This record gives sequence, structure tokens and C-alpha cells, in this order.
Amino acid sequence: MDYQRVFTQAIDRLHAEGRYRVFIDILRNKGMFPNARCFAGHNGPKPVTVWCSNDYLAMGQHPKVIAAMEEALHDVGAGSGGTRNIGGNTHYHVDLEAELADLHGKEGALLFTSGYVSNEATLSTLAKVLPGCIIFSDELNHASMIAGIRNSGCEKRVWRHNDLAHLEELLAAEDPEAPKLIAFESVYSMDGDVAPLHAICDLADKYNALTYLDEVHAVGMYGPRGGGISDRDAAADRITVIEGTLGKAFGVMGGYIAADQVIIDVIRSYAPGFIFTTSLSPVLVAGTLASVRHLKSSSVEREGQQAAAATLKRMFAEAGLPVMDTVTHIVPLMVGDPVKAKKVSDILLAEYGVYVQPINFPTVPRGTERLRFTPGPAHSEEMMRELTDALVEIWGRMEMKLAA
Amino acid sequence: MDYQRVFTQAIDRLHAEGRYRVFIDILRNKGMFPNARCFAGHNGPKPVTVWCSNDYLAMGQHPKVIAAMEEALHDVGAGSGGTRNIGGNTHYHVDLEAELADLHGKEGALLFTSGYVSNEATLSTLAKVLPGCIIFSDELNHASMIAGIRNSGCEKRVWRHNDLAHLEELLAAEDPEAPKLIAFESVYSMDGDVAPLHAICDLADKYNALTYLDEVHAVGMYGPRGGGISDRDAAADRITVIEGTLGKAFGVMGGYIAADQVIIDVIRSYAPGFIFTTSLSPVLVAGTLASVRHLKSSSVEREGQQAAAATLKRMFAEAGLPVMDTVTHIVPLMVGDPVKAKKVSDILLAEYGVYVQPINFPTVPRGTERLRFTPGPAHSEEMMRELTDALVEIWGRMEMKLAA
Ligand SMILES: Cc1ncc(COP(=O)(O)O)c(C=O)c1O
Ligand SMILES: Cc1ncc(COP(=O)(O)O)c(C=O)c1O
Repeated sequence: MDYQRVFTQAIDRLHAEGRYRVFIDILRNKGMFPNARCFAGHNGPKPVTVWCSNDYLAMGQHPKVIAAMEEALHDVGAGSGGTRNIGGNTHYHVDLEAELADLHGKEGALLFTSGYVSNEATLSTLAKVLPGCIIFSDELNHASMIAGIRNSGCEKRVWRHNDLAHLEELLAAEDPEAPKLIAFESVYSMDGDVAPLHAICDLADKYNALTYLDEVHAVGMYGPRGGGISDRDAAADRITVIEGTLGKAFGVMGGYIAADQVIIDVIRSYAPGFIFTTSLSPVLVAGTLASVRHLKSSSVEREGQQAAAATLKRMFAEAGLPVMDTVTHIVPLMVGDPVKAKKVSDILLAEYGVYVQPINFPTVPRGTERLRFTPGPAHSEEMMRELTDALVEIWGRMEMKLAA
Repeated sequence: MDYQRVFTQAIDRLHAEGRYRVFIDILRNKGMFPNARCFAGHNGPKPVTVWCSNDYLAMGQHPKVIAAMEEALHDVGAGSGGTRNIGGNTHYHVDLEAELADLHGKEGALLFTSGYVSNEATLSTLAKVLPGCIIFSDELNHASMIAGIRNSGCEKRVWRHNDLAHLEELLAAEDPEAPKLIAFESVYSMDGDVAPLHAICDLADKYNALTYLDEVHAVGMYGPRGGGISDRDAAADRITVIEGTLGKAFGVMGGYIAADQVIIDVIRSYAPGFIFTTSLSPVLVAGTLASVRHLKSSSVEREGQQAAAATLKRMFAEAGLPVMDTVTHIVPLMVGDPVKAKKVSDILLAEYGVYVQPINFPTVPRGTERLRFTPGPAHSEEMMRELTDALVEIWGRMEMKLAA
């Protein structure tokens, strides 16, 4: 057995497909986001504009968030020092869970170290607690949901993306008495489309299924209080479990679920991914508390973000760039080839000081490689104009097609 | 299908077994650790002494760590805003990986959001990249390693805890050409014993197996530079993958592996638990950088911690308390019953202001429920004396046996 050879071959395959990933090394400039310093192979850091952050509302630099984190750092210190059960349950954790439960109008909430872990731990545990459970999973569900479903070991039916007729067909085919769980997202982050929550809940009612909704790209962003698409559509009380992240619009790090108390209690008590790990640093929890509270009452950031996304989409379309038609804040430009997508991104960084990461397999299907822009309230119209001009120049240089 | 009933029954089972968990709600007092405020059902916070933190060296309140986190908070902000590949790769991450690689004398290192995730993601991915791999797992391995091994879907052989003859028997029984991985821990955190690293590596050499070592309870704590038991025993270069946490002796939060560059590259490129999640907050990474660097050159904390553990073990033994004989910093008192262990812990908290969590199933096997003390450099002899006296009083009150 030659281990070295197997490992080297695994890496060679990535190079051959043009999808070996090089991480661009940056430092954001707090207070001046989307400005950052880039360390990639240059002499000393070079200024760049970040166009691919999921800190959608720039809350990661919000003065209230920074102040809350600083206070916690000085009051209680760096880490929690333990799992939630053994020494790592701080008053911040308790408060944030109450705040998140309130945000979604649920009885309880539970924090995890990330959105990934919240999906993996909750889905795998829910399905184990319900013997014979069948999970109905949208085909575009995130890798963390897929991991949770796989690790639950239960039966899985994959429905075509947002296709209600297909979902109903699959639900109807099963034993009416079997426990069922429909797992889906609200905003699909790579395509920018939205699930029809009420219609899915109607099917859940009809077939007595539980519902599990990933609102990772929607919490903080949609709804009058930032409770996500389920807040905007007044559907939260119809969803069994709402899952979110603290690391995107809230600007910090971590994940959570909100649900009935008994479900929170089950996950809290049975999920290894919750139980056997050091809890979130109180510094992060304190920062998120400030962020969630702020976005519950302030819509300025949401409106600024929506306006910026609309402007950028319009500019791209007017310039003939292949912008994907989305109903959300996500602005993807389809390239359809991993090598070209990386080339465009490399030129943007080297010649224009624009940082946007190419998105390739396995994050999106092969052949749909793209550049994904996330304009926010802090991206100015001037920045958007410069970006559009740069892209048009590169598209021409690389002999790629522009619409008439 | 009555979902409510199933969930309620799952919780009722925990109550019936006396292992329903109530999280004690605390806030540590930075600079005065192990002092903390406890919020559990009292009027206003009440002062307690924490005896069950895994912030073993009190680095969570070290001035260098706090200063580094504050600086990062003000320089770059709260969260990273993205996955490592998409906008979330900061210069702090790059620096900390270099620092950790150096700590273990390895070519590279890779950060994860937690030690749990580092184990789950690495083990499940390694075994998938090596078709036909067989994992040899110590029976007391941590839940996160068990999760990674299960999720890899590969063959698994469980060897009796630290039993080299059994390990060899299992290795010898397999096809010499099959890829093999031996997974184990250095310090077993609930029993406080240590694995014989060199002897295990001898077997790995003999049977051409890779080795995977969880040093979560040893990094920062053992070895001249805090590289763990593999540092103390000069065995690091014989271990294929060393895994650690940033959330215990380093005092912050997060996890990592250190290994040859090609292995780091494989995990970085193929592990969903690494790829599809927001990267560690730069604030945490900056704090850990300061912590790791400090503990590389300072042994004061390690020595203080070892001295405190030795003193507490001696006091417990002299008082006839059932302290488990350990060769490490862990000081467990065996109770052997979940209800009694919780009772002792409740009395300590309510009457003595002592916080030590009872450890029950599934963290330890049923019937071996215990109290696990983690004295550190900041616990004074006076605190230890008071604790010992309190325990003797409670042991008497509850009519539990004391040694002669
Ligand atoms: C849909 C979706 N769910 C979950 C996650 C994971 O959340 P986190 O980054 O907090 O781990 C992500 C992205 O990272 C995501 O895009
Ligand atoms: C042996 C062992 N490995 C891994 C972990 C997980 O590390 P973390 O707390 O950083 O998730 C723990 C405890 O939490 C542990 O005890």
C-alpha cells in the first residue's frame, strides 16, 4: 500500500480538472469594508475590494457588535472553557437562545458551533429519534444538510429543486403512518432563488410531515425583523425547525436552530455534534446578541443591501454580462467553465484590485461554474461601475460572449 | 404518526435514568478565574469557584490573548464573512496554521471550527480517499472520532483500550495490502491515562498503517513547547496526523490537524466539514496565535497546573475520597451512580459555591458516573482544602464510603 501515491493522485485529479483551490489571503479593514488587504504573492499587502463576502450587511464591523465583543472579552475572557454541559454554558448563550427563539416566534432555540454543525447534528439526530423516518430533501440542499441526512442512516427521497408536484408525488408514495421530514432552504445561495414556503407547508400538512428549513442566507436579511423568508412570508409558525447561521448577515460565527421546546430538548440531549464540543466563545455570542437585536429593529441595512443588489444586477444586464436572473440579494455571473472562471477572477484581483472568488464544483454542479457577487450597503455605485467596466473589458479580452 | 409523543418519550427516558441534563448558567470573571458568577435559579448572580473547566491553564484570561483578540477585533472586525475558499481566508489563519505546523514539527496544519469537526471531517475524508481502508479504533475514543469513522463508511476494528496485544492481533488478521489507519488519543480525558505512543507506532510500522492521534487534552499541556504527549515523548514525527483543539489549554475555540502537506491538501480539498462552513472568526484565530506562541516558550503554566493536580490528588486520597489513580492532570472522583453524582454536584453548588459538573452517560459508560476536577495554576491550596473538606462532609451526609 503506497499511501503517498494515493494522496498525490487525489490532488492531481483536482489540478487536471482545473479546480485545485488556492485560498486568497486577506485582512479586512474594519470600518472600511468592503476594503481589505490582500497578501497573495505580492510584496506586502495590496488593497482590494471584497465582492464575495457573506457578511451581507457589513454587521461584522458594526460598532454595536464590536463594542459588545470587546465588553465580553474583558468581562469573561476568550473561550468558554467547556462543552455546554460541562462548564461552557454562559449567560450569553442563554440570552442569545432566548433572543433567537423570539426572532422566529418559537419556544426555544439552540446554539451550535456553526451553521454546518447545526444542520448536520439536528438532521441526523431528528431522524434517529423517529424510527423509520423518511427525509424528503430538495436536490439543491446544502452539503451540511446532505451530511446530516446521510449520517442519520434513514431513507431519503430527493425531490427536484422547488418542484412541488414532484415532492407531492414522493410524499404520496409512502406509508401515511411513516414519520416524514421535508428538508429545504429558503434562499438558495448559489442561484439566488427562493422556496415557496406556504405551498411546501401545505403539503406537509396534507401528508403529516415535519418541516426543516435552512434560512442561513436569509436570517437578518428578510422580514420586518430579519427573521428570514419565513418572517417575510409569515410562515414561521408552520415550520417545525428553522435553522440559521450567525456567520453571514449577523456578521459573527456560529449556528442555531429554533423550534418547539421538546424538539430543542431532544437535540440538546441526543446530538453528539452538540454535546461533545466546546461551546461557542462568549465573545462571539455577545457580538451576535448585539447584531440580532440591532437587526430586529433596524431595516436600513436590509434596504441598503437590496438596493445595491438591484443596482448591480441592472448594471451587469445593461452591459450584456450573463447575470443570472435572481429574486434575491445574490448576483451570480454564469461562466460555465472552471478554468475560465478562475482566469477572470485572477485578472480581477491582479489588475483591478477586485476580489471575487470563482465558484466551482463541488459547491455548484460542473459546467455551471460562476462568479458570485454579494454587493452590500457598503458597496458604492462607483465601485459597481468600475467593477462592471472591468468585467466587460475582461470578457472582451477572453473572447467570451456578451449579450447584444 | 404522533411526533409529539415520540419526542416526549425520548425526554422522559432521560428523566427516568436520572441523566436529564440541566446546564449551569455561569459567567467567568476574567482576571479572577476560577471565580465566576452563577445564574442558576438564584436571585441575581452568585459567586462560584469553577472546578470543571477545560481552560486548563487559564489562558482564556491571559493578557496576551486578550490583547491579541482586541487588536484583531478592531483591525478586521467580528467574523471572517466566508468559507476558507470564498472570502474567509485571513492572514491570521495562514499564520496560525504555520505556527501549529511548527509546534508539531509537521509540514502543514489546517484549522477547523472545532476539535469535534476536525476529527469528524479528517477521519471520514481520509478513509474515503483510501479505498478499502480499515480503521483500528481504541474503544475509548472520543465521540467525534467515532462519528468520523462511522461517517467514512469504512471497515472498523475496535481494540481494547490501550491494549497493544489486542491491537496487533487485529492488525495481523487483515490483508497486508489493505490501507490501515490506527486512531487513538494521547490523554484520555475522563480517565486521565495516556497511550503508549511509541509502541503503537512500532505496530503501525510493522503493519504499514497510518496513525491518527487526538491530542485534544494534551496540546499546550505536555512537552517542552506544549506540543502534547507526542512532543514530550519525541514521537511526533512517527504520527501521520496529529489533531488538537484551540478550546482547552489554548483557552479559545476551534480545532486543527497537523500532517504532511499532501495530507493537509487532501483534507482541505475534499472534506465537506472543512469546505462548506464559515471559517473561524479572525478574533479567535488571533487570540490562539498569541496563546500558542506564549506556551511554546513558557512552561510556568504547565508546571503550575501539574503541581495543582498533584496536590489535589494527594488531598483527596488522604481524605479517603475515591480519587481515580491518574498519571495526568485529570482528577476524577468515582461515584458510579448518575443520581448520586448529580446530588453531590447540586449540594456543592448550592451550599459551597463550588461548580463541578457530574459526568454521566453517554460521556462515560453507565455505572462509572463521576465528578471530574480540573485544578489549574489559578486554583489555590486554600481552595483545594475547602473543596476537600466539603466533599468529605457531603460523602458523610450521603452515607457514601470513604477509604480508611
Ligand atoms: C445553505 C447553507 N447552509 C448552511 C451553511 C453553513 O453555515 P456556516 O457557515 O455557519 O457553517 C451554509 C454556508 O456556509 C449554507 O450556504
Ligand atoms: C478527546 C476529545 N477530542 C475532541 C474533542 C472536541 O474538541 P472541541 O471541544 O474543540 O470540539 C473533545 C472535547 O470536546 C475531546 O475530549
